[in-house]
Amino acid sequence: VLPTRLRCYACGATATFDERKRCTCGESLWFETSSSGFEWPDRRDPGMWRYADLLPVDPSSGVGAAAGGTPLVRTPRLDVGARLLVKDEGQNPTGSFKDRGSAVGVAYAARAGRDRIWTVSHGNMAISTAATAAGVGMECTVCVPVDVPEERLENVARYGPEIVRVEGDYGRLYHESLALEGIEFVNSDTPLRVAGQKTVALEICEAFSPELPDAIVLPVSSGGQLSAVRKALGELRAAGLIDQLPRLYAVQTAACDPIVRAFEVGEREVSAIDAEETIAYSIANADPPSGNRALAALRATGGAAVSVPDEETRAAQRRLAREGGFVVEASSAVAYAGLERLVERGALDAGERVVLIATGSGFKERTESPVESRTVALEELSSIE
Amino acid sequence: VLPTRLRCYACGATATFDERKRCTCGESLWFETSSSGFEWPDRRDPGMWRYADLLPVDPSSGVGAAAGGTPLVRTPRLDVGARLLVKDEGQNPTGSFKDRGSAVGVAYAARAGRDRIWTVSHGNMAISTAATAAGVGMECTVCVPVDVPEERLENVARYGPEIVRVEGDYGRLYHESLALEGIEFVNSDTPLRVAGQKTVALEICEAFSPELPDAIVLPVSSGGQLSAVRKALGELRAAGLIDQLPRLYAVQTAACDPIVRAFEVGEREVSAIDAEETIAYSIANADPPSGNRALAALRATGGAAVSVPDEETRAAQRRLAREGGFVVEASSAVAYAGLERLVERGALDAGERVVLIATGSGFKERTESPVESRTVALEELSSIE
Repeated sequence: VLPTRLRCYACGATATFDERKRCTCGESLWFETSSSGFEWPDRRDPGMWRYADLLPVDPSSGVGAAAGGTPLVRTPRLDVGARLLVKDEGQNPTGSFKDRGSAVGVAYAARAGRDRIWTVSHGNMAISTAATAAGVGMECTVCVPVDVPEERLENVARYGPEIVRVEGDYGRLYHESLALEGIEFVNSDTPLRVAGQKTVALEICEAFSPELPDAIVLPVSSGGQLSAVRKALGELRAAGLIDQLPRLYAVQTAACDPIVRAFEVGEREVSAIDAEETIAYSIANADPPSGNRALAALRATGGAAVSVPDEETRAAQRRLAREGGFVVEASSAVAYAGLERLVERGALDAGERVVLIATGSGFKERTESPVESRTVALEELSSIE
Repeated sequence: VLPTRLRCYACGATATFDERKRCTCGESLWFETSSSGFEWPDRRDPGMWRYADLLPVDPSSGVGAAAGGTPLVRTPRLDVGARLLVKDEGQNPTGSFKDRGSAVGVAYAARAGRDRIWTVSHGNMAISTAATAAGVGMECTVCVPVDVPEERLENVARYGPEIVRVEGDYGRLYHESLALEGIEFVNSDTPLRVAGQKTVALEICEAFSPELPDAIVLPVSSGGQLSAVRKALGELRAAGLIDQLPRLYAVQTAACDPIVRAFEVGEREVSAIDAEETIAYSIANADPPSGNRALAALRATGGAAVSVPDEETRAAQRRLAREGGFVVEASSAVAYAGLERLVERGALDAGERVVLIATGSGFKERTESPVESRTVALEELSSIE
């Protein structure tokens, strides 16, 4: 029997999964998870599925079974005062953190007898949902803005989903799609996606166990991933496996930073803004559906929100590659740029251990830099050093 | 103390690592590994480093520590008679199997006090070597053919290695580079690379333990990866952990298939051929340095070699994505196309378990297909199913 009971983190109201995906109070609903008595598992299931006891469904076959289990990499060369560990989510099946939520979403929908899954995305989430659905033979529909350039859809189209360009406000599409009856949308902060996404924090905490990292830094767009991390920490505390919470730091691009703005002025609610162009376009959500949840999580853990301009994102991306060996997308590099700012502000002490969630591989994006090289003759090879 | 003793698989001669990288008989040299008494480890080191007892060096810091540990994914939709499991090497730090050999190569060179590492490659191996070197702060030089298009070097250049275009025969460069004194080249079938590369087979066998897969199918270019798989199987047999060997099947592109040609006519040595253009250009090695070793491994295990035309590779690539959720490069898709041919020939029985090594992610290659989509108005969303 599939669990169906959801609860609103904000007002405490409950609902079933079939009734609604968002609370009548406007906030997101999550699966209720009883973690009482949970211990770090002995089971050797691959990746994130070792935490199946905390998930609303068991793994299905196919690529979704391979999600998660990404490395946590200590790279001293990237230290910026604090001691850095990179959680390399690019090593998921489709190269991004989205595979965790897709794995739970597709497995649950399959068990529930659905033959098609839907999502609103033109980036990593669309790629991930389409791939995971393909792995179990489920149809997939991806809804994108009517004017998104074709080249941004090439990686989505590889998996053969139905692609629907939707005319009208994209923010409204997000919410209205969730209210459709009989159609299963797995959007960025929906109950199934948050349920899968939380496994990244379970992996981080288990790797540090019985200690804890001092802080976790991550890029934020809809707020879904930050919500999921917060949910995981709560479950681990309820299980008695951690007794305090690492500080959570959210980083946004300065071109679109509604959560940062609300954080800085002490608001409890995030207001929609007008976004500008940015290289980190995949985290440019001007009206984040889990923005309020994100704000609460930052404050509850003693963290903060910070935004960075594109030029710092570019520099961070370059440093991650050239000094760390990590090619990440611009939307991941913002987190490293933000970390540098946080250290300058004194938010992190030297010697503190901070985990950077590198959310996605950079190989899906073309590079802009020219290739520099020199030419030698084979006969001169011995003298080139 | 770093181990330095190498042995020729063919003539049995020994040498030290500093003396030479290839045997005076012309064949490749490998590190001698004593696996007597080796057991599947309890250690929880990340990825391939759980097998450190069989490797010539311990892990260094940085991204090399995150190599290996890739998922083995059962995907019934991709079955072609035999029962298929995909070993998804695209989930390595730089998206290909090459990270395993780079991890050992860079760690060893660092321990040996080198400050620069070299490789001859313009593809995954160059990307992987440059990334792994960056992770420990070692300089890297990548030697490429003088006429390689700049766009093929973009992913290499992200990591900032020195790129040297070499005028002259590329096959000669491979061999002459290994004879240079005081310069550490980690080419595709060198002792350090084979030592790291073998961990893919250790992972496969441990996942099946105490059973074994019936067959392993992989794309072959230089023969280095196949050699490494063969070496691992030998070590596991010497340790008593397996008592027979899975059949090894090598797949090449029909545009460049010197190993297949030699196999089919019963030769013991591979002869250089003239390669044609192919979408699987990264496995188009016309004069494979470990070709003879590959031939011997195929015959010793009761396997075979088969080649496939580009149109079958394209169809395999499409099926892997649309029915499996795996976006792989063309050079990996050849293995699936080859598997389909092998099943047609009766080489594999229904119900046999076969592991396909998907050597690299396809996200580094652009897609050629147009993106198909349709447009609806937001108001019509409820009626689109």
